[in-house]
Amino acid sequence: MLTPGHDETTSEPDLWRLVERRTVYEGRFVQLYQDVLEGPAAPEFYEHVRVADGVRVVALDAEGRVVLVEDQFYLPQRRMLHLPGGGIEAGEAPALAAARELAEETGWRAASWQPLGSIHPLPTSTAARTHLFLATGLTAGSVHRDATEQYMTVRQVPLAEAVELVRSGVVTEAGSVTALLLAAQSRPSGD
Amino acid sequence: MLTPGHDETTSEPDLWRLVERRTVYEGRFVQLYQDVLEGPAAPEFYEHVRVADGVRVVALDAEGRVVLVEDQFYLPQRRMLHLPGGGIEAGEAPALAAARELAEETGWRAASWQPLGSIHPLPTSTAARTHLFLATGLTAGSVHRDATEQYMTVRQVPLAEAVELVRSGVVTEAGSVTALLLAAQSRPSGD
Repeated sequence: MLTPGHDETTSEPDLWRLVERRTVYEGRFVQLYQDVLEGPAAPEFYEHVRVADGVRVVALDAEGRVVLVEDQFYLPQRRMLHLPGGGIEAGEAPALAAARELAEETGWRAASWQPLGSIHPLPTSTAARTHLFLATGLTAGSVHRDATEQYMTVRQVPLAEAVELVRSGVVTEAGSVTALLLAAQSRPSGD
Repeated sequence: MLTPGHDETTSEPDLWRLVERRTVYEGRFVQLYQDVLEGPAAPEFYEHVRVADGVRVVALDAEGRVVLVEDQFYLPQRRMLHLPGGGIEAGEAPALAAARELAEETGWRAASWQPLGSIHPLPTSTAARTHLFLATGLTAGSVHRDATEQYMTVRQVPLAEAVELVRSGVVTEAGSVTALLLAAQSRPSGD
């Protein structure tokens, strides 16, 4: 039994080691694997999925407004308001994917890009990461959405208002939530 | 072609409608489906996975310190520092799962629970949500970890230090990141 309130320390144990990877499903956007493992308390196999890493962009204009896009999402069965972004293509660098998605979805190009780190959305189920960026020095260009994005709309709101949309539960996509909160925290005078 | 810089409006279009759900895989922790859809620009089918909804808890003591746990994660192949939490069991309310996970992993019980909302970690791949809570009025109790958590360690750090662990990329799990940033934002005097 451990007593909380005191910091515990432990020697670094061995991680589970991969013995065999069984491919259960290879889809277009999702792959599913069973990894046979060895190591302390290892399960018979570990189920996990592979999906593309993602990017989300806080595109902040000179007036302190951020670009939000709204689109329909099949799984939650509703429209969702979120930051521009999407899946990284095979071999594509995260920063290039971020610039591509921002331009395709909103038309905006940015002169300056600052990484805001990356998150693990569901690290027990997938190794996928979402990479976050702050983009400034915006200039307008043309939009190039794909067929599934035909109902996407774009709006600009002050950063403080975007944070309120997070706090009130309107913006819920993990990458968008994190990037907006990080951007707001580093610019507390933005509201 | 759309010109950015102006807010767009669109009438609410029909969402894709489910015609048939094919079960591709039913595992212990992951289920994978192909949903056959109808509607504008619908794909032949939509691949998605079902995993349990999750919970994460910011357990804040009277001195403004939060409880962090560190454990090994198989997929990122490293130890990760994160908030107490885990998967919601079948039929379990999120708030009860949060209290259960906090107690099991850290021993702490909380007198007061405040919801911090919920996020969609990967809304294009799964409908799963992670529910976030702020717990205060802490009292110590015994720890009950399962076999896979035998290398888990617990520590307490000031909330402002936990936020720095987010900003520096040490804490990357989406629910932990979001809950810590939300808690810090509503208690800006905490540092």
